[in-house]
This record gives sequence, C-alpha cells and structure tokens, in this order.
Amino acid sequence: MTEQCPHRTVYFISDGTGITAESFGQSLLAQFEHIKFDHFTLPYIDTEGKAFQVVEELTKLQDMGKRPLVFSTIIDETINRIIRNAPVYRIDIFDAFMPDLENELKLHAIHQVGKKRSITSGHKYNQRIDAVHFALDNDDGAKTRFYNQADIIIVGVSRCGKTPTCIYMGLQFGIRAANYPITEDDGDMTRIPKALQPYKNKLFGLTISPERLAAIRDERRPNSRYSSSRQCVRELEEVELMYAQQNVPYLDTTHYSVEEISTRIIAQMGIERRLK
Amino acid sequence: MTEQCPHRTVYFISDGTGITAESFGQSLLAQFEHIKFDHFTLPYIDTEGKAFQVVEELTKLQDMGKRPLVFSTIIDETINRIIRNAPVYRIDIFDAFMPDLENELKLHAIHQVGKKRSITSGHKYNQRIDAVHFALDNDDGAKTRFYNQADIIIVGVSRCGKTPTCIYMGLQFGIRAANYPITEDDGDMTRIPKALQPYKNKLFGLTISPERLAAIRDERRPNSRYSSSRQCVRELEEVELMYAQQNVPYLDTTHYSVEEISTRIIAQMGIERRLK
Repeated sequence: MTEQCPHRTVYFISDGTGITAESFGQSLLAQFEHIKFDHFTLPYIDTEGKAFQVVEELTKLQDMGKRPLVFSTIIDETINRIIRNAPVYRIDIFDAFMPDLENELKLHAIHQVGKKRSITSGHKYNQRIDAVHFALDNDDGAKTRFYNQADIIIVGVSRCGKTPTCIYMGLQFGIRAANYPITEDDGDMTRIPKALQPYKNKLFGLTISPERLAAIRDERRPNSRYSSSRQCVRELEEVELMYAQQNVPYLDTTHYSVEEISTRIIAQMGIERRLK
Repeated sequence: MTEQCPHRTVYFISDGTGITAESFGQSLLAQFEHIKFDHFTLPYIDTEGKAFQVVEELTKLQDMGKRPLVFSTIIDETINRIIRNAPVYRIDIFDAFMPDLENELKLHAIHQVGKKRSITSGHKYNQRIDAVHFALDNDDGAKTRFYNQADIIIVGVSRCGKTPTCIYMGLQFGIRAANYPITEDDGDMTRIPKALQPYKNKLFGLTISPERLAAIRDERRPNSRYSSSRQCVRELEEVELMYAQQNVPYLDTTHYSVEEISTRIIAQMGIERRLK
C-alpha cells in the first residue's frame, strides 16, 4: 500500500464488546483494497456521558474535513439516540435490521446489552473452557492417553500452525483438538507415528509452503538448521508423502488465517461444532 | 427455556468462513429471548453446485411450513444470485450495505472472497501467533523471566479464567498476556508474590463468585478440598483483599464471557491492540 492511497478513519462503536461491529465492519471494508483505513474500536459506550464524548470526537474529525466511517452495534436506545446525532457515515446492524426482524418474528426485541448467545451460559462456558484446556494439555504430543476423548488430532511439522488452530477450535467451537508434531525424532516421517495409529480416523494434516515455514522458523531460531530452507523442504516433502500414502486428509495453510484453517477442517471432516 | 417456546430454524451461510454471519446473526437473535433458535452454519458455499443444494434444503424446510431465517455474507455475485431465489427470510450485510458504502467511498468493491483484513497478512499473522505462543509459554506462572515483554500479567486464584483470557487476547488482539496463579503455596495470599513485584503496573486481577468457582473446580476434582465452598470463599477473600490493598485493578468474571473479560480489561487498562 503506497502513500498515495486514499485514506479514511473508521470507528467501531458498541455498548458491548465491539467484536461484532469489528467483524462486520472489517468484512465490508476488506472489499475496498485501494483505501487505507485507520481504525479505532470504542467498546462499552454504555453511559450517556461516554456517548456524548464519542459524538464530540467524531464531530471534531468531521470539522477537520475527515468524515469518519462508523460501524456500530448499539442496543440501548438512549445511547443510540445520542450517537445518531454525530455527523458521520454510519452503519448499525440493529438500526438497519431490527424493525424488520421484529416484524418477521412477531416479537419485540428486548434491547438489552450483553445478551449474546452461545457464550455466557454456564454449560456452554464450561464446554469452551474445557476444550481450551484440552488443547493445552494435549499440545505438541505432550500426552497421548486422552486421544480417545479428542474430536480431532492435528498433525504436521513444527510451526506449521497446529497449536493456534487447536486452541481456536476449542475457544470458538468447543471442539476438543489435540495436536502431535511430526519430527525426525519419530524416525521415518513418511509413516504414521505409533502413538497415533489407533486414531487414524481422527487425524488431519497441515502443510505449508517451505518459504513461509522457513520465515516463521527463522523468527524463532535465526540462521539455524531448523529454519534452513533445505530442512523445511525436506520435512514438508516427507510429511506430504505420508498424508498421501496413508490417506490422511490435509490442508495447505500458507494463505489461510487461523479462522479459515479451523473452519475448513471442520467442514472437511464433518465435525460437529459443540457450541451452537 | 420451555418446550412451549416458539421455534425457528436459522442458517448462517457464507462463501467464506461463516464467522461474520454467525457473529452478526447471533447478535440480532440474542435480542429475542423467548424464541428457541436451532442453528446451522454452512460455510464455504463457493460453487454453484453447493449454492443450488442450499436453496433446495431451504426450499424443503419452507415447504414443510418451517420458514427458515438466513443470515449470510456472500461476496460472490453468482452465488448470491442463486441463494437469493430461496424462499426464506434473509439478511445479508453485503446486499444491505455495499451499494451505499460504495457510493460513500466512491469506489467499487472488489467482490472477492477471503479478503478479510487484519488476519491473513504475514506480519499480522506472525504477531498473533507469537502472542498465542507467548500466552502458552507464560501460562500459570511457568516462567517469569519474560515478564518484561508482557503487555499485561493476569493474576487470580486457580480456575478463575486466567488462561482462556490470555489466549484470547493473543489470538484476537495480538496482545502478549502472561498469567500467574495466586496460591497458598506462595505464602500470604494478601501480598503480591515476589516474582510479580517488579511488574506491579502490569498486573490485572480476576475474581469470581465462590459458588461459580466451586462448580468449575468440582468438575476438575470432584469433592476435593480444592473445590470445597469453604476453600473457594477463603481464597477469594484473600485475593480480593490483596487487590484492594495493593491497588491492583480487577474484574469479577462471574457473569462475563471470555470476550467480555478480555475487552473490558483492554479498555480498563488502556492497552493498545497490536492488531488493527
């Protein structure tokens, strides 16, 4: 992105966490590649005082000729009425969709902050946290005796993205994901390590481009054999051979985010999300 | 929720991960407490074949008298034209907002799937993954020698939510969060443990209701001293006394999700999100 890019200031504003506002706002803005967006998240705008401050800040920008873009999720009607006065371009999903959705559901929305489903209820909270702890306890082949409880076991060479993927699956979907590194220490890398053989149908492999792997490893151990291009190429060739020969489904993570890797694995393996 | 609740089937449909569709859909539906929603996520609907299958599935439901609700984020115009034929109630943020946003930005959207910002670019990917590994390496007081690199150090009694909070902060915001357990082993629980004293300004405490803590601990070690109500009350009293006496800012996590805990801490501590 060059200095000549047009440039806009973006605010994500919410009386809750701001996560939904960020999510839908980023999705929309990602479709405009040639604009540079500076963004700021203002969560928990949940008092009239805070709302007036926000309006003041936005008005100042507008007066300086920098018309801000605002993506918001404001549930409280009083707060919303105040923010509505800001001289900005604003998209709010509650404003936009709620009246029509109320009509479809033939019910009035409760307009209460902090009600997001599938996150706060006791049972689901426990399921999520248990799944995160499962990912941690079963990270990097540390233990194998709980693999019977795993929904999935991710395999791959060191630093191909196993750990963040397992954690994300636990945190976001309550899925119990273990991971096991394929290393030279286990002998022939083209064979499924012994500890994994009873769980062949739970295995999912990750791979990555050698260049990307070398770059990631080099940040960890600069100029080492471990991060050398030659070593990365060799390990990846062997592990990919193993996936192919042993019919282990796999995914190349080079161009994917943790979110994409996780949701693609879930879709491909047909795993049921425990959090719904 | 009783059996008499009205009942609707909900689909989150996307040609990407489906995460944004889930996020804004859940936010809207959470405002209707007296309806039971059964939901299904259909991600990666990225071929005409898959799109026609979806329309068929939705049409069947409609024919059975179960008019589905659909929340979607479909970027590809060909896919969108197919899904649009489904006889359902549908909300799509691209359909709803894109034409107007294009007008405001005086640019055409690129209409390309998988472009979500702040996730896939190399530098930001590394920052996220490094932050997750930082949280893992510095979990549960395992190491203290990297605390100078921490953006924040979360403290609290065992199982009050420290680990998932640290991991979430890393994964979602690229923040480097360590955590340190306050236990009887460290002697007087009302004092800041020695290892933490040089980092007093990075400390943030968590607390929780004794009932909730006992329930969480009881799942881990049933009927133990560790999970007894008496022990939980005592530990929490001491740790809360420490927070108050030592001016450690803190939060009661009892009624909050990991997302809420994390974003409230960030807001309260004024930590800068490293991923923007």
